[in-house]
Amino acid sequence: MTSAIRPLLISNVRLADDQTVSVSVVGGRIEAIGPNVAPPADALVEDGGGALLLPGFVEGHTHLDKTHWGREWYRNEVGPNLTDRIANEREFRKNSGHDAGVQSLALSHAFLAAGTTRLRTHVDIDTDAGLRYLEGVLGTRDTLAGVLDMQIVAFPQSGMLIRPGTEELLGNALAAGADVLGALDPALIDGDPAGSLNATFALAERHGKPIDIHLHEPGEIGAFTLKLLLDRVEALGMQGRVVVSHAFCLGALPEPTALLERVARLRVALLTSAPPSRPVPPLKRCRELGITIFGGNDGIRDTWTPYGVPDMLERAMLIGTRYDLRRDDDLAVAFDCVSAAAAQGCGFADYGLYAGARADLVLVDAETLAHAVVARPARKLVVANGRIVARDGALVHAA
Amino acid sequence: MTSAIRPLLISNVRLADDQTVSVSVVGGRIEAIGPNVAPPADALVEDGGGALLLPGFVEGHTHLDKTHWGREWYRNEVGPNLTDRIANEREFRKNSGHDAGVQSLALSHAFLAAGTTRLRTHVDIDTDAGLRYLEGVLGTRDTLAGVLDMQIVAFPQSGMLIRPGTEELLGNALAAGADVLGALDPALIDGDPAGSLNATFALAERHGKPIDIHLHEPGEIGAFTLKLLLDRVEALGMQGRVVVSHAFCLGALPEPTALLERVARLRVALLTSAPPSRPVPPLKRCRELGITIFGGNDGIRDTWTPYGVPDMLERAMLIGTRYDLRRDDDLAVAFDCVSAAAAQGCGFADYGLYAGARADLVLVDAETLAHAVVARPARKLVVANGRIVARDGALVHAA
Repeated sequence: MTSAIRPLLISNVRLADDQTVSVSVVGGRIEAIGPNVAPPADALVEDGGGALLLPGFVEGHTHLDKTHWGREWYRNEVGPNLTDRIANEREFRKNSGHDAGVQSLALSHAFLAAGTTRLRTHVDIDTDAGLRYLEGVLGTRDTLAGVLDMQIVAFPQSGMLIRPGTEELLGNALAAGADVLGALDPALIDGDPAGSLNATFALAERHGKPIDIHLHEPGEIGAFTLKLLLDRVEALGMQGRVVVSHAFCLGALPEPTALLERVARLRVALLTSAPPSRPVPPLKRCRELGITIFGGNDGIRDTWTPYGVPDMLERAMLIGTRYDLRRDDDLAVAFDCVSAAAAQGCGFADYGLYAGARADLVLVDAETLAHAVVARPARKLVVANGRIVARDGALVHAA
Repeated sequence: MTSAIRPLLISNVRLADDQTVSVSVVGGRIEAIGPNVAPPADALVEDGGGALLLPGFVEGHTHLDKTHWGREWYRNEVGPNLTDRIANEREFRKNSGHDAGVQSLALSHAFLAAGTTRLRTHVDIDTDAGLRYLEGVLGTRDTLAGVLDMQIVAFPQSGMLIRPGTEELLGNALAAGADVLGALDPALIDGDPAGSLNATFALAERHGKPIDIHLHEPGEIGAFTLKLLLDRVEALGMQGRVVVSHAFCLGALPEPTALLERVARLRVALLTSAPPSRPVPPLKRCRELGITIFGGNDGIRDTWTPYGVPDMLERAMLIGTRYDLRRDDDLAVAFDCVSAAAAQGCGFADYGLYAGARADLVLVDAETLAHAVVARPARKLVVANGRIVARDGALVHAA
């Protein structure tokens, strides 16, 4: 997918402010965007037909390696506890023929067709599977390198300290191409919050990698772990290099302001899938304090959850309902969570609708941005890194 | 839509238990359903192609008269309070040319196309509009009488006691064809919980109608109002004739069991739209106690909310995520909320997949019931009251 691609002019599209513009694309970048844009030499010209132009969507947190997307329906008969789900999944993946390479490619294709051009995926690293799932997802990343900008988090789904050998495997995963070090519930899974965080930060420092930690721990215990984490961010100069995913605890404290202010000061970003059945970090308060808070699907149709679709407009809609965002200006915030804020939180560069940005573009038939979020219309056209990858919801350039 | 219709045989469809069956339909009823069903004389034969067969869906609570469905996008700039929303809507409807007849027909068509064949709608009755919205919705009910089974609730959206004249209008609405008496927050809107409930129950008794009350009142005040309501159900013999919609209070009490047991004993049904940002009645606990609890969209794309689609499979999915239902058997409960439980709660007769039931059928390409809820596939075929009304998601028989 790295062969030379033809320049592109997309005419007659509307921005969120309702201005009608054209966009020219050369060498995978937006060359110009505005009301009077000349077609580049030898450009393919696409009439946007008055569609709304959006930047390519950003999936801030998913698990490509776990999904059953495209496989037969998985009948979920799993017990209700976190540990039930972890054990069940490890067992399933050992025995079902589930292939992380095949599955991650299938789901990535679906993401692209629905307009997602940047994506952060957590990949399980454990002592049963070693780096097998990572190898599958690395294969998918290579295959789609020309179009899908993918970050891989090496994630100890079964715990780190409690499963000796995992720490070394995580280091191997980072050496093998994972971009980010993952972690999981230092208190409630690893049973040693200080020790687990120390090991995580040491490993990240050794490999020069950022951190993205799953923190499901609720209320006071979650807040306790989060404080320990912030201490280490501060002591080790990891400002702007740490994401806390889920952070349910921040939705359940009677007075979270002091903690949130510290999160803001240390430039720790927050990821939420906006689950309706769990407390969630206070979106507007976080934004007021300058915290980057962004959205992601989490798992999509796997042994953990039957839910989820690789459509970031649907995730924006769900974020909107979770936070009771009803006004058009509030729905723009929901969209920001799956676009600019997610690019910011994950550190995807050159993101947006401006000259010089990576040419990741989505056209939808919608009157306004809020309408697009609510109605989730089929994607008329998806351009990824300057290349047309999907039309009318279907992939046309599948590597 | 009441002309004689041709008998029908739908072959090669699967039930939720995976058994392959055929269904014969004569005179708007299921004549037979099973593995060896003979086609009725002169039957139209449809090959189901192995699709999953579901009963027509039931919308337990919506507001057909308010929707903007099919109109231009409404830019929501409304203030955050209940009273802001009520006042804004009254103003909008007075000045925007919004027509309850046109809009309720547009949304009903969309409901039918997506497989909903029974529907309870609340219709605003207030001293500005009088019965104008009701007349529009009655027109839609007449138009679709042959296919869509519609219950109309006369609903005092702007309050009853606080707007003198409303009570009389509600009586007029019941006399004019509304099936159910509505009510709204007797304490927090009407300001007189005992007085408001007394007036509501007296009016319902006078007209011999059941009651469906919007109870948004939270926590202790909601529980207080609910107790007053239950007292009146008991005193007036209204067991099995009252629905409490929303009932947020039941999701926020430290110990709701005694109250829930009384709800069960008095056969008061509960309706939830499963909003992610509000407390909700405990679904499984309610079902264990024998309470009929069912689902509905509430408003769809109106001045209150931008959200919602007339697709009860999507509502079932949202109910599933709100209650964190992940197992296949739990997803069957989510589906029950928009099918059998909703028919039970609203009192729609002859509902289900059995010989003698009203022939309301939906075919979807899904492996299992849980898969249908999660994936919300396009409706291959919709039969309403024995008549094919939609194919592949599009209405083919629009009155």
